[in-house]
Amino acid sequence: MASAETPSSPIVEGRLAQEFAAPSHVETVKGLMTEFAERHGSAGRRVVLVTSGGTKVPLESRTVRFLDNFSSGRRGATSAEYFLELGYAVVFLHRHRSLYPYTRRYAGVNLLDSLRLEDGTGTSCQVVADEQVLPNIGPVLKRYQEVKKGGLLLPVEFSTLSEYLHLLKAAAQALSTIGSKAMFYLAAAVSDFYIPPSEMPEHKIQSSNGPLQISMKMVPKMLRPLVKDWAPKAFVISFKLETNPSILLERARQALATYRHHAVIANVLDTRRGYVVVVTQDDQVELALTEEEMRQEVEIEERIVQNLFAAHTHFMTQQD
Amino acid sequence: MASAETPSSPIVEGRLAQEFAAPSHVETVKGLMTEFAERHGSAGRRVVLVTSGGTKVPLESRTVRFLDNFSSGRRGATSAEYFLELGYAVVFLHRHRSLYPYTRRYAGVNLLDSLRLEDGTGTSCQVVADEQVLPNIGPVLKRYQEVKKGGLLLPVEFSTLSEYLHLLKAAAQALSTIGSKAMFYLAAAVSDFYIPPSEMPEHKIQSSNGPLQISMKMVPKMLRPLVKDWAPKAFVISFKLETNPSILLERARQALATYRHHAVIANVLDTRRGYVVVVTQDDQVELALTEEEMRQEVEIEERIVQNLFAAHTHFMTQQD
Repeated sequence: MASAETPSSPIVEGRLAQEFAAPSHVETVKGLMTEFAERHGSAGRRVVLVTSGGTKVPLESRTVRFLDNFSSGRRGATSAEYFLELGYAVVFLHRHRSLYPYTRRYAGVNLLDSLRLEDGTGTSCQVVADEQVLPNIGPVLKRYQEVKKGGLLLPVEFSTLSEYLHLLKAAAQALSTIGSKAMFYLAAAVSDFYIPPSEMPEHKIQSSNGPLQISMKMVPKMLRPLVKDWAPKAFVISFKLETNPSILLERARQALATYRHHAVIANVLDTRRGYVVVVTQDDQVELALTEEEMRQEVEIEERIVQNLFAAHTHFMTQQD
Repeated sequence: MASAETPSSPIVEGRLAQEFAAPSHVETVKGLMTEFAERHGSAGRRVVLVTSGGTKVPLESRTVRFLDNFSSGRRGATSAEYFLELGYAVVFLHRHRSLYPYTRRYAGVNLLDSLRLEDGTGTSCQVVADEQVLPNIGPVLKRYQEVKKGGLLLPVEFSTLSEYLHLLKAAAQALSTIGSKAMFYLAAAVSDFYIPPSEMPEHKIQSSNGPLQISMKMVPKMLRPLVKDWAPKAFVISFKLETNPSILLERARQALATYRHHAVIANVLDTRRGYVVVVTQDDQVELALTEEEMRQEVEIEERIVQNLFAAHTHFMTQQD
């Protein structure tokens, strides 16, 4: 399937090394991820890499301006919780300050609005959580602390596209150590375009120079080396978000045909909270919430993760 | 000073009306800001509009991608606190999710890491703040609650450039009702470039179409009508951030000459936390923290606000 638009793995790897600066801590993080995967793999646990949030693409070397992608990280943070409920250990590769598992339930709450000053037993004054502002905080906090204490969630942060790409490669190689027990759930909204360092101005672009022309190159698709070289035994899921429903399934099928991975979760911007299609080589399954379920705040991520859990079980059996 | 690059007020106003969609709540917010300004003005209080955070510039009508400006909102949120300490009432026009006065001290803290489960007096379990994670939380919370109870801080949010521009105009007109007691402290990192609606694609740009060419127009400078028409009696401060120190003061002087406002706070990206220059028509004053002050976490915003407080006092005396 290789064509001008879908270069081979060595070309993608070459561009990654040459055109995207690796963050200085990538090897340290890779070590942590490898240890995490091996520890949980040995304990018979499956491990999923959940990527989440949008990537930042600098327009200047000393960056003031950047291109970004709309993404709160809700899909990734919510899915991570459901993976944990089903017994997975989770590497959560997420955009700095995007939504976080469990904490996401209180996104948008100003910390100081959620606390009350209360007279303590003696002369002391205690600061306590306001349950009106943080509904269900006791049980949520308890679950969060259990997950943390169990070492089941490994958070890794990125901001820029370069950081994301290098950390994704490191994560893929780390999780490849546990073969088919590894799943990749690539929900991050990764930029398709970037400016190579050689074409980037050093300083802030001056508005006095007149209108701005930006010329951006296409980002190499990491899905190819990920599936082919970095983690060839793993179960790999990508996402396809479009605003135009009429081209969605075609794009999803194209991606599957090109990268030969296992499923694409296809969704449309306006309806993504209540409707997705799980597209596989041989099949496509619609997952939809009813209006009643939406009212009861059922989350579509629960359905997506249940669907993939079953598919992953089947996949592991086949591989053995 | 009008030239091709600095169009007259009517032209700026015309472009604002035609090329930037007004948010639906702008009149409601304008009413709230007017009431706020008049209430505090009548009580003899000065009112400052602090703008803070970066603006989002959509690249598509159904937006997936956007251009953004680096800005955490630290400068604005910190300055707002010092204005409150000096007796100002503050309209805080800030980017959604950027740093917020008082709460900014705990930015980066995960809410669930800052809470502890504690056995209550009876069978109940209480959720309390962890002072290790939230240092000084008692006094900070107390001050936050006083400010809120006193109605001294009016928060107004924006995300896109269009929202910011229309809300800035509304704020300027609202604060003009109290004449020279109003200060504008324009610390937001506003985009210089945008794509007019007529040139914007409806749907998500397809990466399969090849490299991306973006052509952006210059944003009309609101400082001109703000100073000339919207709030002609107010004390107006703008900011100039550059990455290249060698052009900084020249740019600051150019802005003052063009817009005829009262001061430019000039700062360089790398050193902005410890050094700024307050540039006025007749003078320029350097404000710098010593290394010892940096270690003691003295904030340069305290110095900036003190400097402007004195200048505002002088300005008000001259106007009377």
